[in-house]
Amino acid sequence: MAEADSPSAWRDIRGVGFAERAPLARAWAWLDAAPFVPACETMPAAQAIGRVLAADVSASRDLPTTDRAAIDGFAVRAGDTESAGIYNPLLLALSDSPGAGSAVPVFAGAPLPPGADAVVAFSSVSGSAPGHLQVIVEAAAGEGIAPRGGALRAGAMALCRGRRLRPPDLALLAMLGIEDVTVFARPRTRLVVAGPKGGDAEALAAMLRALVVRDGGVPSGGVCKWFGEAIAMAAEADVILTAGRSGAGEDDVAAPTLVEVGGEMAMHGIAMRPGASSGLGRLRGKVVLLLPGSPLACLIAYDMLAGRLIRRLGGFSLDLPYPCATYPLGRKIVSAIGITDVVPVALAGEAAVPIASAESAELAASCRADGFVVVPEALEGYAEGETVAVCLYDGFGRHLYSRA
Amino acid sequence: MAEADSPSAWRDIRGVGFAERAPLARAWAWLDAAPFVPACETMPAAQAIGRVLAADVSASRDLPTTDRAAIDGFAVRAGDTESAGIYNPLLLALSDSPGAGSAVPVFAGAPLPPGADAVVAFSSVSGSAPGHLQVIVEAAAGEGIAPRGGALRAGAMALCRGRRLRPPDLALLAMLGIEDVTVFARPRTRLVVAGPKGGDAEALAAMLRALVVRDGGVPSGGVCKWFGEAIAMAAEADVILTAGRSGAGEDDVAAPTLVEVGGEMAMHGIAMRPGASSGLGRLRGKVVLLLPGSPLACLIAYDMLAGRLIRRLGGFSLDLPYPCATYPLGRKIVSAIGITDVVPVALAGEAAVPIASAESAELAASCRADGFVVVPEALEGYAEGETVAVCLYDGFGRHLYSRA
Repeated sequence: MAEADSPSAWRDIRGVGFAERAPLARAWAWLDAAPFVPACETMPAAQAIGRVLAADVSASRDLPTTDRAAIDGFAVRAGDTESAGIYNPLLLALSDSPGAGSAVPVFAGAPLPPGADAVVAFSSVSGSAPGHLQVIVEAAAGEGIAPRGGALRAGAMALCRGRRLRPPDLALLAMLGIEDVTVFARPRTRLVVAGPKGGDAEALAAMLRALVVRDGGVPSGGVCKWFGEAIAMAAEADVILTAGRSGAGEDDVAAPTLVEVGGEMAMHGIAMRPGASSGLGRLRGKVVLLLPGSPLACLIAYDMLAGRLIRRLGGFSLDLPYPCATYPLGRKIVSAIGITDVVPVALAGEAAVPIASAESAELAASCRADGFVVVPEALEGYAEGETVAVCLYDGFGRHLYSRA
Repeated sequence: MAEADSPSAWRDIRGVGFAERAPLARAWAWLDAAPFVPACETMPAAQAIGRVLAADVSASRDLPTTDRAAIDGFAVRAGDTESAGIYNPLLLALSDSPGAGSAVPVFAGAPLPPGADAVVAFSSVSGSAPGHLQVIVEAAAGEGIAPRGGALRAGAMALCRGRRLRPPDLALLAMLGIEDVTVFARPRTRLVVAGPKGGDAEALAAMLRALVVRDGGVPSGGVCKWFGEAIAMAAEADVILTAGRSGAGEDDVAAPTLVEVGGEMAMHGIAMRPGASSGLGRLRGKVVLLLPGSPLACLIAYDMLAGRLIRRLGGFSLDLPYPCATYPLGRKIVSAIGITDVVPVALAGEAAVPIASAESAELAASCRADGFVVVPEALEGYAEGETVAVCLYDGFGRHLYSRA
């Protein structure tokens, strides 16, 4: 097997079949170690939703910027309310400016009037003589106040490098007065889908574009007839994904074409179903992934191989972009030792039910599925009733999961 | 409380405070019942990623469209391999056209040559005389074949109304030859954020734009000084979100302005922390949500109220767009009966640790949080060690959850 990792050992397997297939873990190790120079760009913070910070952001000012009222009520000196109670109401003078024995109406978020050190709520006062109010609850100093720097101190870490920006992060950056952020560039991902135009190739191209965008990449290219030329042009991208013609048939030109245009294969044939005919290679320093042309195999190979690389180049997590939950299996899954199987499942009540085998599943099965189960190489499968991890295509809003 | 639901009962609460606050469940019931006419649009299927189908899509053709080879190998008549075995190799003639006693090389995905009814794998044949091969495994009829219509029959349901389109759905639609799909229109969501420009109002606007896009809406508008004019103009939208000036202070003009321009309030004050000063109303038949101006309260009120409505109008699930998992609490949470508290938590090892109270939390705490715990109205809180559901801001790739 070591031999297969050496580009010079690549040979045309068309019409012969794969002598051996690389374990998925080896493909991942290769992808995770593929050298690249991370590219960064600076952009307006307000538009950087979903982008990944390429540098730590520290707070440029205190938040709040001044002591503020945290609630609606009256700003007072806490000392003036000492021993106040329902049976000992204390009279304070309503005032626009604070001072001993006075109370200034304030609303949540407003700067605290100087001299005041507490805010008593509407509910802590009762009726009173005109221009006055009666405090019926004793306030401690600092009560009802959001102190300057209490949320975030100037100089403290606000958001870390690697953070994928969420909606409230945009608000935090604006509150800190930070207008621009430095983020990782989105990996330019060139698609080279084996034509002819209009057939299933367009289907692959539409799917791959959506997947690349999901994983933070910028897709370009699509269906083309002349594989060689397309691959050579694609070297301007950060990653090249070919789809189709990756197998062992006579018309499976993906791997030999890559070699013809000056690239090299590192692995061809991965011990995974679907997607076994996938390959990994390089062209002018860029990774080239050969994905199968069968739509489901292409999807699985993208998810298990290509998406991981694109997420890595863009600073995202390497993890599959699906939430996972464990369920008991509604029916057994048969796999084979030495092969990673990806099995579509549907959720039925409490259980996950396989709806096709890894070997025979078609794209339509995947579209009917709620998610998939990955059967690792070391296992022959799972028994009915066994608890398995399910990657969910749409895991939002499910209050289903519990930490084991 | 019933009175508060009647628009005519609305009165200015500025400087007085909320006499009562509506339970969150009542606000949800009102939002879920708000009348609207669902709008649809037709668009190219290849660009419809993330959009929600407004009509069922049935298969316009069989998939696969013909019997196909499911594996690389040789197309044969199964009968010709009867009783073949390693000790009984059967000789077949290699041929370009099928017939009794012949074997046609085929590759996965290729149409099955007429007459053949099985495909034997490379591994099921051994060396042979030139122009011939030896079959060493008996094949059953249909083996190694993906039969026409086996994945999807013409006329069968391919994708249901309400489906949020995923990347492989785009491929399935293309394979079915479906070029256009009818999807729900994205709800036009007008933002009216209390100015002045440049302050924290810009922070709210940036956050709200990102949230609206996340939930499938199209945001417009932003920070403005003249609330009344902005609200009146916003009636062209499907939903209006105001942010800021929603409370009980003298400058809290959101509710009275809505009434001034011809709208009406339905509820003002929700029994929820943060976000208690939120309000619900209508203007010319459209829902107007009054969100607080405190950034965290605005975020929570958006998530708990506005996002739900926008998702409903766009055909999305009403569920919060976060995956949830249960964790033991690392520290107790104190809440109050009658109030729904939203408490930011950080994950620390196996536990979820509250990092601020619902009452005092600021946006920066939410940005440090991994998610939040919702303490329902009926509970006084949760004890340390108690198992709680955590909504996770970034729940992808976590192989953490198990079905209880």
